[in-house]
Amino acid sequence: MLEELKERVYKANMDLVAKGVVIYTWGNVSEIDREKGLMVIKPSGIDYDKMKASDMVVVDVKTGKVVEGDLNPSSDTPTHLKLYNAFPQIGGITHTHSTYCVAFAQAGRDLKALGTTHADSFYGDVPCTRSLTKEEVENDYEANTGEVIIETIREKGYDVMAIPAILVRNHGPFAWGKDGASSVYNAVVCEKCCEMALKSFALNPEAEMPQYILDKHYYRKHGPNAYYGQIKKRQ
Amino acid sequence: MLEELKERVYKANMDLVAKGVVIYTWGNVSEIDREKGLMVIKPSGIDYDKMKASDMVVVDVKTGKVVEGDLNPSSDTPTHLKLYNAFPQIGGITHTHSTYCVAFAQAGRDLKALGTTHADSFYGDVPCTRSLTKEEVENDYEANTGEVIIETIREKGYDVMAIPAILVRNHGPFAWGKDGASSVYNAVVCEKCCEMALKSFALNPEAEMPQYILDKHYYRKHGPNAYYGQIKKRQ
Amino acid sequence: MLEELKERVYKANMDLVAKGVVIYTWGNVSEIDREKGLMVIKPSGIDYDKMKASDMVVVDVKTGKVVEGDLNPSSDTPTHLKLYNAFPQIGGITHTHSTYCVAFAQAGRDLKALGTTHADSFYGDVPCTRSLTKEEVENDYEANTGEVIIETIREKGYDVMAIPAILVRNHGPFAWGKDGASSVYNAVVCEKCCEMALKSFALNPEAEMPQYILDKHYYRKHGPNAYYGQIKKRQ
Amino acid sequence: MLEELKERVYKANMDLVAKGVVIYTWGNVSEIDREKGLMVIKPSGIDYDKMKASDMVVVDVKTGKVVEGDLNPSSDTPTHLKLYNAFPQIGGITHTHSTYCVAFAQAGRDLKALGTTHADSFYGDVPCTRSLTKEEVENDYEANTGEVIIETIREKGYDVMAIPAILVRNHGPFAWGKDGASSVYNAVVCEKCCEMALKSFALNPEAEMPQYILDKHYYRKHGPNAYYGQIKKRQ
Repeated sequence: MLEELKERVYKANMDLVAKGVVIYTWGNVSEIDREKGLMVIKPSGIDYDKMKASDMVVVDVKTGKVVEGDLNPSSDTPTHLKLYNAFPQIGGITHTHSTYCVAFAQAGRDLKALGTTHADSFYGDVPCTRSLTKEEVENDYEANTGEVIIETIREKGYDVMAIPAILVRNHGPFAWGKDGASSVYNAVVCEKCCEMALKSFALNPEAEMPQYILDKHYYRKHGPNAYYGQIKKRQ
Repeated sequence: MLEELKERVYKANMDLVAKGVVIYTWGNVSEIDREKGLMVIKPSGIDYDKMKASDMVVVDVKTGKVVEGDLNPSSDTPTHLKLYNAFPQIGGITHTHSTYCVAFAQAGRDLKALGTTHADSFYGDVPCTRSLTKEEVENDYEANTGEVIIETIREKGYDVMAIPAILVRNHGPFAWGKDGASSVYNAVVCEKCCEMALKSFALNPEAEMPQYILDKHYYRKHGPNAYYGQIKKRQ
Repeated sequence: MLEELKERVYKANMDLVAKGVVIYTWGNVSEIDREKGLMVIKPSGIDYDKMKASDMVVVDVKTGKVVEGDLNPSSDTPTHLKLYNAFPQIGGITHTHSTYCVAFAQAGRDLKALGTTHADSFYGDVPCTRSLTKEEVENDYEANTGEVIIETIREKGYDVMAIPAILVRNHGPFAWGKDGASSVYNAVVCEKCCEMALKSFALNPEAEMPQYILDKHYYRKHGPNAYYGQIKKRQ
Repeated sequence: MLEELKERVYKANMDLVAKGVVIYTWGNVSEIDREKGLMVIKPSGIDYDKMKASDMVVVDVKTGKVVEGDLNPSSDTPTHLKLYNAFPQIGGITHTHSTYCVAFAQAGRDLKALGTTHADSFYGDVPCTRSLTKEEVENDYEANTGEVIIETIREKGYDVMAIPAILVRNHGPFAWGKDGASSVYNAVVCEKCCEMALKSFALNPEAEMPQYILDKHYYRKHGPNAYYGQIKKRQ
């Protein structure tokens, strides 16, 4: 079942390696079929160079049960499920341990919006969550990781699709989008922006960007007035 | 029309990817035909691996109107046009979001001339512009980006071809040259010099270079007394 | 003799180059056949691109004598032998001069456990040893390197397989595992964690991780209650 | 003439690109035929991907005149000649603008010996020269670059083959060896050691190494008592 979706999720997972944000098995991408209520996700701990599209695992988004697939789904499956259930706009999710995102997550710092590269994809700072408590870690850790992500987005009052990534404290980035491929794109952009920000702070610890540049660049590419790319036909 | 120029501009754009200064669609190169008053530029938001020479867009440099091409030209087109119209010496322009240049642009710091690698291509510090004002951003943003570049060059009293790059505050680098290919070269050199400078400052925040070394290396490669390369035949 | 083991050790050595943790001849991997009491190790100072499986050298683990092979074994052979003799759980050993591990070793700093990437492989800080004394360096240097590693592990009270890597002061990393391939994996992970930690400290010199996250992630992948990957069949 | 030497010098130059220490035309390698008193060197300003072995230029080491070759020799030719004439032990010379070496040269800092990676190739700190004076730069600049290198080595009292590299202030590294290929090796090692040192200082600005470790590692690989590699047959 869902062979086309499996193929897409497989390719999105392989793209993580091609883009240099994953080594070994350190990442996973999923995509949801909202109509069927099913999610397709990478199996747990399988090397990318041995993985096939048919290894992708189908999971029921409401019950969390595996519907098809011989392998265990990614151990981060409960985090993906929490996000799909909380935010109906999300169509795909990526998790990696990419180096610069992890550095911000380990440092416990938000990725501040410092320039137009950031503003083209993220309408504001990409937040770093609080640490999970001992209780949250010891009981249902992966689901609680999802809960802390949701809590952070809601407390910030963010539009989940306008800032489609987050840094989980002491862990690493989760990114999302309208499908698996766009969640990979946002994960790669987040890594690049973390790299640029770390280097900017090395040159100027007080670096910042005016709000009106953030507004301009974000809405140049997103929403009804976007004019970047081929979205709007030339008159 | 301008098939040869389109091929050249296409190749210059692809070279950005080969040189590692661009990922996704984050860059663009143009070149001008001064006789015809036409500029050829990369289309907006098209992936490099799907792009063909025939996708390049021809734009009238005076009116800014598209003369040929099915796709929208780069959203940075008005910036390119401003520069071509202000500086008749410029034959090609490159814009990227290369990592180290962006770090300087986000930090709001000029790229100081610290060594001969820099002096071989740039006769002085590569400046970082001021931030655009709210009004400049909200009305005709891309054209105003060009205006701020022009203002910076004129205020510094720079020869535009002697320092063929600039860092736009909170944004990234623009570079230029006698044609598209040389503007790519200058964009790559600027990125490398930013990397070297950031690392030099990590070792010595007070790093600097005497003016006479800057003079020597620049004029070894440029102007009537240049002797680097195969410019001047051996006697 | 031991042709299969030689092939495995050869491949593990080549993997060091593929993973980017070794240039030139700057690394070596060995694996032990515990039943026969023999170790297979890379020859000394041989370029990776000229090396063949048949060049691997067989060494008696008790006597340190070469049992088979025309070439000298790695000059680090006595260090490997010390570790195999001290810790019967170790099946393979890797030594490299990978950049970030060397930076921590040269700085004389432990690799602090800052995140889940670290916790997935190392149950605690990866220690940096003390400097060897003048006497230890001048007499039987490579064997004493092994002794200082053993001393460090014992003084810390570490389970040698739970923190399967160490940084030798002013030198570089040694890593180990159940076989040669897993020792390479631990060497690569240690390099990545050093990179992440250096960048984390650049953003927050006080970065740290709660003990309960270390516990959770380590035991999610290791020991009787592990549930990461395909270790445990789904019910 | 000297076709074999030209082939060797060509390959050594291409190796600079393969090892990632050169982009564009930013480097050159030469090798000397001491018996004939002739040096073969890369032509000036020629792209690596268009260069052929037959483009190499033959220069008389005493007179500095081109003996064979249609192209101008590297503009750094007078620096190479000074070094060959001052130090009869030198058989090959490499110059690059590799990133980390340039960072030290721009920062005006010696490359301190911090670990065994360094000690395996360099018996002590790799010095950074003083700045050339205005007069030295304006008259016979490239020859004076050679003079300042020679002055630095002599003032330090260094054995030129024991520390086969130097950083020219505000410029970059020169390295040498018994032939062109070994000078490339030393240039690559110097770049790697600069990278490791910069990162070590980021973690510990007071990093250092005891003299006896430097002694041990250097003499493990060099001189009559060397036992690294296949130099000495096993008894």
